[in-house]
Amino acid sequence: MSEVRFDERGLVPVVVQQWDTGEVLMMAWMDAEALARTRASGRATYWSRSRGEYWIKGATSGHAQHVREVRIDCDGDTLLLLVDQVGAACHTGSRTCFVPLNSDDVDSDDVE
Amino acid sequence: MSEVRFDERGLVPVVVQQWDTGEVLMMAWMDAEALARTRASGRATYWSRSRGEYWIKGATSGHAQHVREVRIDCDGDTLLLLVDQVGAACHTGSRTCFVPLNSDDVDSDDVE
Repeated sequence: MSEVRFDERGLVPVVVQQWDTGEVLMMAWMDAEALARTRASGRATYWSRSRGEYWIKGATSGHAQHVREVRIDCDGDTLLLLVDQVGAACHTGSRTCFVPLNSDDVDSDDVE
Repeated sequence: MSEVRFDERGLVPVVVQQWDTGEVLMMAWMDAEALARTRASGRATYWSRSRGEYWIKGATSGHAQHVREVRIDCDGDTLLLLVDQVGAACHTGSRTCFVPLNSDDVDSDDVE
């Protein structure tokens, strides 16, 4: 029995946050088995939509995410993973995947 | 011209974080116009998937989100909004929508 509401693909978005600094590192996706594997192993495990397979974060890079806590939002369709991130969360080598969005990237002419 | 990669519904997930404490408050969705309105007004504006309409956070509750910065992740399909949240982010009256996920909520028998 689960209170997690997976979407029509059987997936739920997972926000990943460094547990002590509060830095938001990345967002990824889990299905029910990825979540179960994550909780059983304590190592963040996701479902890759592009590759169609499970991936244990850091399995090849060494940049593992040790899970401290799993949280869920009020309507059950988003998870928040508090982790201890080894090294870089981003495949670019950056600690976090997030960078400032350039203001030129959106056409504000669309605003009425 | 936009580097934001909206999904097949024209939406992008938005992680919302209190800018100074780092607390993750909620997750919501934007289309291109919601993003443009957010940036033009400085007030977080989302697309409601259930109601099929734009909603300005706090328009009725007073619990507005004043946007300090918009970030984007490395593959362009997730936004991170740094906001100054007035009052409660969650409709339940809690500051954040996230609560601990009870370990009974997932059937760990699924793990091999």
